[in-house]
Order: sequence, then C-alpha cells, then structure tokens
Amino acid sequence: MRGTVLHAPFDIRFEERPDPRIEQATDAVIRTVATCVCGSDLWNYRGINPVTEPRPIGHEYVGIVEEVGAEVASLRAGQFVVGGFAYSDNTCANCRYGVQSACMHGGFMGTCQAELIRIPLADGTLVALPEQPDAGLVPSLLTLSDVMGTGWYAAVAAEVRAGSTVAVVGDGAVGLCGVLAAKELGAERIIAMSRHDARQKLALDFGATDIVTERGDEGVARIKELTDGVGADSVLECVGTAESMTQARQSTRVGGTVGFVGVPHGIQIGGDELFRTHVGLRGGPAPVRRFLPDLIGRVLDGHIEPGKVFDLTLPLDRVAEGYAAMDERRAIKALLLP
Amino acid sequence: MRGTVLHAPFDIRFEERPDPRIEQATDAVIRTVATCVCGSDLWNYRGINPVTEPRPIGHEYVGIVEEVGAEVASLRAGQFVVGGFAYSDNTCANCRYGVQSACMHGGFMGTCQAELIRIPLADGTLVALPEQPDAGLVPSLLTLSDVMGTGWYAAVAAEVRAGSTVAVVGDGAVGLCGVLAAKELGAERIIAMSRHDARQKLALDFGATDIVTERGDEGVARIKELTDGVGADSVLECVGTAESMTQARQSTRVGGTVGFVGVPHGIQIGGDELFRTHVGLRGGPAPVRRFLPDLIGRVLDGHIEPGKVFDLTLPLDRVAEGYAAMDERRAIKALLLP
Repeated sequence: MRGTVLHAPFDIRFEERPDPRIEQATDAVIRTVATCVCGSDLWNYRGINPVTEPRPIGHEYVGIVEEVGAEVASLRAGQFVVGGFAYSDNTCANCRYGVQSACMHGGFMGTCQAELIRIPLADGTLVALPEQPDAGLVPSLLTLSDVMGTGWYAAVAAEVRAGSTVAVVGDGAVGLCGVLAAKELGAERIIAMSRHDARQKLALDFGATDIVTERGDEGVARIKELTDGVGADSVLECVGTAESMTQARQSTRVGGTVGFVGVPHGIQIGGDELFRTHVGLRGGPAPVRRFLPDLIGRVLDGHIEPGKVFDLTLPLDRVAEGYAAMDERRAIKALLLP
Repeated sequence: MRGTVLHAPFDIRFEERPDPRIEQATDAVIRTVATCVCGSDLWNYRGINPVTEPRPIGHEYVGIVEEVGAEVASLRAGQFVVGGFAYSDNTCANCRYGVQSACMHGGFMGTCQAELIRIPLADGTLVALPEQPDAGLVPSLLTLSDVMGTGWYAAVAAEVRAGSTVAVVGDGAVGLCGVLAAKELGAERIIAMSRHDARQKLALDFGATDIVTERGDEGVARIKELTDGVGADSVLECVGTAESMTQARQSTRVGGTVGFVGVPHGIQIGGDELFRTHVGLRGGPAPVRRFLPDLIGRVLDGHIEPGKVFDLTLPLDRVAEGYAAMDERRAIKALLLP
C-alpha cells in the first residue's frame, strides 16, 4: 500500500510502504475512506518538533474494516468506522473516567495518511456506523476523529452551558469546531477571534455572534468591551502558544473557565494569577472516543456539518500539497481521499 | 476600643485604637462576639509578607450589630451576624456569578481582631441569624467567616461529589475543614495528609477514611497505592507552597481536579503538564458569602461542628499568645473572645 512519510522538515512524501497487518488479537486493519492534515501535523512538518528520521504521519481517519483480530468482538469486515486520534481500550480506569485519550493501555495514532491503517485496541477505539453513510457525510464524520471532537472537548472543558458567553481563541479548524460545539451546547453569545475573511464567515456560519479581529491585549480589551467589562464565561484556547494562552486567560471573566486544546508550547502559568482571578483551567488531548456516539448521531441526522472546515480536497497521493496549503494558511484544512 | 495591631514581625499587640464608625451609608459597625487567628495571618506575622508599618489585623468575625448606615436595609441593631473575610455588594456581575470574594466594589477585611469592627457593604456582606445562637454554636459559626467557607470552596472547586475519592493536602484548620466539606458533599473516600497526631484525630472525626503521613514524592506514591495506581478524583490544596501544589497535582488522577485555596507563594505550573494529565485547576480566595446561608443552616441544625478546629481559646487581649501558639504549631487555631 501507499502512505505518507515525513522525511525532513517540509519534505513530505506519499510512497510505497508495507501493508499493515493484524499484530495483536485486538487489532483491526481498515481501508481508509478519508483522512486529512491536522494543525498539529504542522508542528512536525515545520520541524518545530524535531524530525530525526523518516516517519509515517497522520492521525485522522474514517474507513471500512478490512480485517479484525481474533479478540475483536464488536466489529466485522465491511463496516464503516470512525475512530479517534488516540486508541484506547475504553475499559481502564482512565477511560471509564472519560479520558480515553489517556488510556492506560492506549496511545496515539500516527500512520493514518495512508491507504490502510492498523488500529490497535479496535473494540475500544472504533465506533461502527449502523450502515454505510452517504458520501456527503464523510467529511463531517472524518472531523469527529480529531478536529470536531477536540473543539467539543474544548467547549466541555471550558464548561460551556446554556446561556454562556463564550470566546474562542484560534481560528484554525479546531477553533471553528469549538464555535460549533459552543453553539450546540447552548451558548448564547460566541465571540470568535479571527482576522481572516473565510474563517470569519465559517465562524458565523457555525454560530459565532461576534468577530474580534484584534489580538493580544487589544483582543482582550475588545472582549471586555463586548461583555460590559466582565469577560467571557468560557474561553476555548485552540492554539497552544504562550501568547494565545495568556490572551485566553485574560479574556475570561472572574470565576470563568478556560478549556485548552492547543498543544502547549512554552506555557507557564502563575499560581498567583489563577488565585486572584478564580479562573478554572482544564485541557489536554481530547478524549474523542467519549464523544463519538453523540457526535456521530448529530452528524447522521444532519444537525451539524463540521465537514465545512475542509476547504481543500485532494487525492491522497497529493498530500504534500495539502501540507503546503495549510502551512501557508491558504487552506483551513485539507481533506485527502485515497 | 481595643484592637490588635501588627507592629513588626513577631510583634503583635492589643492596644487602644479609635472606635470604628459609620463612614459610608452602606456600612455597619458590629461588636465582636468572637474572632480568631488565621493561617494566612502568619504570613504577615512571620514577616514573609513584609510589614512596613504598624497595621491592624484579623479578618474572621461574628458579632452583634451596633449601628447601621442609612442605606443598610437588611440589618438592624442587636442582630447576630456572620460575615466573610471579604466584603461584597452581592449584586455586581462577579457576585452574581458566585465570586463574592472578587466583588467589583468589594475588598478584604483586615481589622477584625478587635472589639468593634466596621463592615463595608453590610447588606451584601453580613448574614443575620434569625435569633441569638447558643453560645456553644459560636465557634462553629465563626469558622464560616473563613476557614470552613474556604475548606468548602476547596471541595467545590475540586468538584467533589457523591462517591468521590478525595485527598486533602494540608492539615491546618482549612485542610481539616476541607475534609469535613468533602464528607458533607458525599465523598466516599477521604485521604487526609498529616503527620500530626491531634490533627489526624480531628481529620478522622471530620470524616477522613485514610491518613497519609508521607510527604512529597512519597506522599504521592502512597496516595497512588491507596487508589489502585489511579490517584484521587479531587484534591484539595490547602497550603499554598510550590511543594504542596506539586504534591496536589501529582496526587490527582488523570482528568481529576485540584481545588486550591492556600494563598500561592512562588507557584508556576507548566502548560505541558496540565495538558498531559487533563488535571483541572480552580482556586482563589473563597467566596464565603456564597456559601454562608447553606453553611449557617448546617451549623444551626447541628449537622456539622467545624468549631472543633479551635483547640485554644484565649481572651482577645491575649491575642499575641494565639499567634505564637499557631506559629509554633502548638495550636491548630486560636479562638479569641473579647
């Protein structure tokens, strides 16, 4: 089969690789129906996370089950499945507590921009659809694998509830899905921070009520201005830099909550500040598996269409163009079809 | 009247001071029935917070209303009142959000180890009892002014709920009240960290199910051992040092929550760590006013007796002995009676 391999910063190739096979009795192998490029892949692509040797890449996928290991009970060949970017047994103490992305026996996917994918702990990782979905739903189902699940977790971690005022820092695909999640969870006001025309439009389409184009201190001031000097009840941090995290905390009202899902790079938080502001913090790699059944339902019944974050569709063998377009911010998110 | 003044580190005096009087129409003046020494007073007493000039001290009190300003609507002379260590209008956006300790027009009490106390924003700060309480209830009512309200907030911020496994870092009066709060909130298992015999006994009396005497890494290891390697769902941090905060975070299960109420001294938290562990954090000066009606009810009906944290009772004019006893850890908490 063919799969994507990152050879060095900015050197990404689609090339022949060994077919994955069942290695453990709990594995499945799936044939990819769709995959995509994640904002977090860019940390590697850009060499910000060092690339020391060629490595396969990609962690978002939907597909058709090809084969299952002897111990896989809930899946069979031919089913359409969605799974998260983390694999999990869904039975350990962490999974039962709702943090499947920190499964005691799990790990992270990393070979998914490929024609075939081995899925460890398939019973605890994959959710099979009752039937084959319409092709038009595939992009939205694919977002549940990471980006929409992550936006959802940001909103849940930020304690968004009916009537909340929410601010979203980051207008990447995760931030945009965070807007959609906040809307679904009943937020009354959703302030999206973006200075990019197409992203603003999508944010408004997903339910944003206000757009703030300012950043840093000016962005914070603008959010305060929009909220009678109070700040937002819930802020979704969807970037991961020290600047964006500071902006998120400072945009939060006293006693409000920041949900952070941007992979942190160089973030230190002072205990004094948290104490003074009563701001609550929770974040991490989203436990997508926890949300899959609910979110699949919302996609299948047409209630949400997170697949709109894909503004570039490419055949999988042109994956390198997808990376380049996202790196240069010409695309929000690139959908790849084998 | 006479009141307590901190002149310099370890130099605390009870001396003649001007009678407080109504300064604003929203003020009340109360005659102190009981006051006490707080662990946080020791930061000043020990000179860790610099003492540059003589200043009155004390922020915990119950008393009888002497006089109210023209705009005070809910109180009248002769009523027995409990108030928090922060004063608040109880009507601003922060108060309505439940964070009365960050009232937009409020502040912190600081002259309460005295015979008379001026209470700003009396309507929003004080809660009057329906009738004079039995003398035996006065110590417990006094704890609601800070220490029990703070232990309660630690448990609420740590998201303690029915069935939770809770660990409490800090065996001072706040930590002990945290144990009691966790018990009241339905925790199934409460691990108190203490190596002090009298404090262990009180923790057990308040509902602790396990005592851990180890500290630091060993304390963390012991908590993991007691929880099948998982950690506690909720950890109450009731000290405020970098060491205790680290111990608290590391004792928390993946996806669990730390409620921190120890005033932070030199605490920095890495975003990476929070991301990796999914541990939620919330803390701050407790919004005691929010909890007063509920907690007063629990004391009046005999359901809780947080006044047991007082193991030393002194006449107010011997306040200096109370500081010395707490500084030397000979007393958990000193009750002062005018």
